Amino acid sequence: MASPKADAAPDLLAAAQAGDRRAIAKLLSLAETAGNAVFRPDEAAGDLMARVYQAAGAAHVVGVTGPPGAGKSSLVNALAKDLRKRGLTAGVIAIDPSSPFSGGAILGDRVRMGDLGGDPGVFIRSLATQGAMGGLARPALDSVDVLDACGFDVVVIETVGVGQDEVDVAAAAHTVIVASPPGLGDGIQAMKAGLLEIADIHVVTKADRADADRTAADLAGAQDMGLTGKRGRGWSVPVIATSANDGTGIAALAQAVLDHGAYLAASGEDRERRRRIARLRLETAALDLMRREFKRLAPDMAQLIDDLAERRDDPRAAARALIGKALKGGA
Amino acid sequence: MASPKADAAPDLLAAAQAGDRRAIAKLLSLAETAGNAVFRPDEAAGDLMARVYQAAGAAHVVGVTGPPGAGKSSLVNALAKDLRKRGLTAGVIAIDPSSPFSGGAILGDRVRMGDLGGDPGVFIRSLATQGAMGGLARPALDSVDVLDACGFDVVVIETVGVGQDEVDVAAAAHTVIVASPPGLGDGIQAMKAGLLEIADIHVVTKADRADADRTAADLAGAQDMGLTGKRGRGWSVPVIATSANDGTGIAALAQAVLDHGAYLAASGEDRERRRRIARLRLETAALDLMRREFKRLAPDMAQLIDDLAERRDDPRAAARALIGKALKGGA
Repeated sequence: MASPKADAAPDLLAAAQAGDRRAIAKLLSLAETAGNAVFRPDEAAGDLMARVYQAAGAAHVVGVTGPPGAGKSSLVNALAKDLRKRGLTAGVIAIDPSSPFSGGAILGDRVRMGDLGGDPGVFIRSLATQGAMGGLARPALDSVDVLDACGFDVVVIETVGVGQDEVDVAAAAHTVIVASPPGLGDGIQAMKAGLLEIADIHVVTKADRADADRTAADLAGAQDMGLTGKRGRGWSVPVIATSANDGTGIAALAQAVLDHGAYLAASGEDRERRRRIARLRLETAALDLMRREFKRLAPDMAQLIDDLAERRDDPRAAARALIGKALKGGA
Repeated sequence: MASPKADAAPDLLAAAQAGDRRAIAKLLSLAETAGNAVFRPDEAAGDLMARVYQAAGAAHVVGVTGPPGAGKSSLVNALAKDLRKRGLTAGVIAIDPSSPFSGGAILGDRVRMGDLGGDPGVFIRSLATQGAMGGLARPALDSVDVLDACGFDVVVIETVGVGQDEVDVAAAAHTVIVASPPGLGDGIQAMKAGLLEIADIHVVTKADRADADRTAADLAGAQDMGLTGKRGRGWSVPVIATSANDGTGIAALAQAVLDHGAYLAASGEDRERRRRIARLRLETAALDLMRREFKRLAPDMAQLIDDLAERRDDPRAAARALIGKALKGGA
């Protein structure tokens, strides 16, 4: 992917906020790659992303996660369609390497959008994760901000529920939906991964399958025993069976999302959750700055790496030396 | 888990190297948690882990990864058994949240070991990933070093092949095995995740199933077209069908692992690969130091977090402030 230019930045946010879809796409590309440019405070891209962050904050951010094969993409598309019927606009950031549609390709986005394609009230983006040791959190959360700042009422962030970063990113939402496919085996595996306990709403997908009822009952039972779902003071985590094929449960899910948003606001839990997300943002931004800075320092690292490879040094001592170098040149 | 004491450190490495299994287990616990203590260079735990790193380097490190449900744990156990028959010792670090046996529990380790249980030439450890925004790479790689330093001839690191960190950790090995279950759908999904291309050896598991041949043929075809596997100068990535049930292909797999090790040494690619791994170690150690330091600074972060949550500040500006604080107090 060609690196987007930050020079054209001044009016990009304004254009995106006015609904220019190419401007929104450009901002999202900047959000994915901006880390390269923002270690120096005076960079135009960094300034632009700072403006994006400060313009964001009004959207209801919904995390959707679940094991591979749970049917998350179809669920998210159906949810977006239902929200549109209610007059709400919806943005989607998908980070799902197991989705046949992900990978950041423009084609992928078009394929994903399907019958939502012509609707200006929907924007779906598949985020390319960049490989090379993590770092998907910062671009993902920045991308959510872009759609938030552009005025989408609901912004959905979809991640596969395996991989610590992936789960953490989905959990950094106001409302967290955990999607489980029918079948007990997967359910137990997901539970082992700590996936079920982050749910504000449980969804059992593929409700047209015979074993969906059983899975929903199992989840509800686990819920009653306090094994899954957050212990909200006044929020009882619902278990909703959905089918993206025939539309079962989709309206109920959309309603539950809105209800949960209302609950957060009424209970004051909203503020607490925003602080938790802000803390995550701070830490991921700081780690991202360090990671990018290390990349910049790669030419200076050859000797450190040689010494490590030959076991003449140890990783922490070398890391302290590297951090020292980074800070001299950086912030 | 109670935090292991570093005070008893001086003789712990020597005891572990002499084969004391409790000492090995203690060292592994230190490797998992040591990050808490090693920002200050004079900490005993940090010194111990530095000694571990410098004592390591002789083992052949084998990464095993693949989608959830590929049967990686059974494959790794069967591989370990075959290596034992050849007179080699084997250590295993498993980071697989979808494995019913993972989670770091001592019980889990015993269950996993099965009929390998009484053999002093095998050590299997399930690593608990610690949640809270990534950071599984550093404990995982340190744990590999522990078993390496304790003299195990082959150290296997098993991770689920979904999640960027998880894939990167498995790729930080001398020989990378990608395990695919029969069935084309999964294969395509894995390919999308960039999983297949890191393979030095492809394994199709559950070869007793009818569709295994087809998957093996598909992988071999993709291989011929240059779609999967590394472009080694002199290494042709084999596709091996295995069954942990009836033992099919396990001896061929063990032989391929040893052959690949010999290839690396003969071709000089070994040195290049060790440098690549050292670079990863350096970056993960540096990020881990920063991450732990941020945790230590949590009480000082309240105002930054409030400003971020209220969108009065932006993540990068706040991150630069945080890094400034960290460096003042730290390295």
